[in-house]
Amino acid sequence: MAKEKLNGKTGVIEIISKEDITKENLARIYTPGVAKLVEEVSADEENVYKHTWKGRTVAIVSDGSAILGLGNRGAKSALPVMEAKAALFKWFGGVDAVPIVLDTQDTNEIISIVKAIASGFGGINLEDISAPRCFEISKVLEKELDIPVFHDDQYGTAIAVLAGLINATKVVKKELGSLKIIISGAGAAGFAIADLLLQNGCGDVIVFDSRGSLHKGRKELVDPSKIELVERTNKENFSGTLSDSLKGADAFIGVSAPDLLVVEDIEKMNDDAIVFALANPVPEIMPTEAQEAKNLGILATGRSDFPNQINNALVFPGLFRGALETRTVEITNEIKVKIAKALAAIVKSPTKGNIVPDLMNEKVVDTIEDVFVCACEKCGKE
Amino acid sequence: MAKEKLNGKTGVIEIISKEDITKENLARIYTPGVAKLVEEVSADEENVYKHTWKGRTVAIVSDGSAILGLGNRGAKSALPVMEAKAALFKWFGGVDAVPIVLDTQDTNEIISIVKAIASGFGGINLEDISAPRCFEISKVLEKELDIPVFHDDQYGTAIAVLAGLINATKVVKKELGSLKIIISGAGAAGFAIADLLLQNGCGDVIVFDSRGSLHKGRKELVDPSKIELVERTNKENFSGTLSDSLKGADAFIGVSAPDLLVVEDIEKMNDDAIVFALANPVPEIMPTEAQEAKNLGILATGRSDFPNQINNALVFPGLFRGALETRTVEITNEIKVKIAKALAAIVKSPTKGNIVPDLMNEKVVDTIEDVFVCACEKCGKE
Repeated sequence: MAKEKLNGKTGVIEIISKEDITKENLARIYTPGVAKLVEEVSADEENVYKHTWKGRTVAIVSDGSAILGLGNRGAKSALPVMEAKAALFKWFGGVDAVPIVLDTQDTNEIISIVKAIASGFGGINLEDISAPRCFEISKVLEKELDIPVFHDDQYGTAIAVLAGLINATKVVKKELGSLKIIISGAGAAGFAIADLLLQNGCGDVIVFDSRGSLHKGRKELVDPSKIELVERTNKENFSGTLSDSLKGADAFIGVSAPDLLVVEDIEKMNDDAIVFALANPVPEIMPTEAQEAKNLGILATGRSDFPNQINNALVFPGLFRGALETRTVEITNEIKVKIAKALAAIVKSPTKGNIVPDLMNEKVVDTIEDVFVCACEKCGKE
Repeated sequence: MAKEKLNGKTGVIEIISKEDITKENLARIYTPGVAKLVEEVSADEENVYKHTWKGRTVAIVSDGSAILGLGNRGAKSALPVMEAKAALFKWFGGVDAVPIVLDTQDTNEIISIVKAIASGFGGINLEDISAPRCFEISKVLEKELDIPVFHDDQYGTAIAVLAGLINATKVVKKELGSLKIIISGAGAAGFAIADLLLQNGCGDVIVFDSRGSLHKGRKELVDPSKIELVERTNKENFSGTLSDSLKGADAFIGVSAPDLLVVEDIEKMNDDAIVFALANPVPEIMPTEAQEAKNLGILATGRSDFPNQINNALVFPGLFRGALETRTVEITNEIKVKIAKALAAIVKSPTKGNIVPDLMNEKVVDTIEDVFVCACEKCGKE
């Protein structure tokens, strides 16, 4: 009989033996049986996918430098979030995910550590690592590792936002490409959202960090990702306040800080304003307040307890499941957009209160998985 | 409903969500609920034991430099062994163990990596790391980390050997302290076995590495652990062959290489010879052959498919369970000896074919756990 769990009440995940262990199978599972598996992997490393859990596992790696909307709290404080993600990975995606929290915030050291542990995993989900370090870390690891690397706070969020925006524009009968979009937050998520929107037809985008809009007058900027956004966004070189920028805007996308907006800010926006207040756990404006704005079209948050939850949890279980299943290493812009469109298409008739599928909708993971299966050679679809 | 497992047929362990995930508990398990846990850990890091799996987890860390008896095969080849250990950890000890295989064999880099990931685990089980690097790695980590660090190939094996030797001497009616003992193998296990025996009453010990006995004439030795053994063992400064050393020996303990001994070697030993042929997966002499020696008293191997399995699997599930439960950081010599004696005492009436408890014996883990509970202040026992 299996031993009772130690401290079974703590945490939300556990590791189990797939088989009951008996006198009979012990010699196969452990010594001497396991030696045969070692020999086979040693002879051909590809066999690691056949004889271990590698092909179905993801390491969720965080240094705790940008936890939810709570900021830099370090490794131990990051652990509850990584465990919760691991629970969602398995429940929604059938993927085994291991929380790895790092007691270093040195970019090069994080890169070295992830490279050193990568052999034991099928993919790397970077999580809650602050900008701009996250850009360098994900760029180097994506290039150097032979398994998929995905910083969920960047493109997980961006894909979910694009999906929500596709359906929001349908509801308010506007064109994605003609929207004036204000993004509040120029960190991991803000950069990725801007990048994905710009790559896919949006031309009028202004991004704000905590000091104001990113524009050509911001000579103090050193973060390469912000300097890049100065080049690619804000064509009119707007340098006023966030509140002023909302005048004539069609969409506000907040991935920044709690309580940044008041009703009057929304009322400066065009009719049928699209407001994605995605800061977690406390959004840029609470739904109860926002709904008082007369011109509000669509409101979304990142939380499970309000309608229109735009959260990267819509993306990561299916994305890694699909990537692991098809051994896809590079998550290209094409794949990201296909996932966003597929997510949006799950909602057959979007309405104000229903622009993205519910996290509990079982079609979410299957649909994203199909994007990978269709992209691979094994499948005749599309 | 939970998503079906991806690649469910591979490997022997999996990670699961402890609860079914529903619309109702999602806001508690994930966002916004998890933010409260982050805040509490951030306010007092001790809360990481209350809100995460840290207090019940062990990282099984290997660089694959000394896998079983198979040698240096690297990270990927180590993974099947670490997974098998993780399965045993949970099944026998109720402990959640995570395989971490490292693509570096640099001592300082391994130390840095383990220090960086340690916040997420309650203990570190070092595994299959070659000597002498393992001594430095375990020494530094034991000193610098605030969680238990245990190189299983060293003292896990040594504790199991001492337990076996205690009962073997009862069966053949000899005193542990009066035995002439030959140890074949001066790596991780060989050093630790010699150290534990020397610390606990054995005076007549000679250790062999692959080039011969460790003695004062071995001027080429640079490994500090071997130089230390030259000082502490081999009082007569014996410099002959392994086979010659067995003349008049009472016990042979092999943690070295397959097929080193023949029947004639055993027959040089004293009557009621104790032979622990523990090389894995192929022992120093196979039981079928050894039993032909007329003077054989006790034979043991490390394998599950012969009687008298002396394997560190007797030790690690209970040792880590006990250490985690009582938050014991330092595994002292006193604890090691208590565990060995407790293991030996499980076998009420030892016989030739039964000197150590079976791995499947449920008393094994409970008994080792009690060593820790008794050593801690919470308990009135002993």
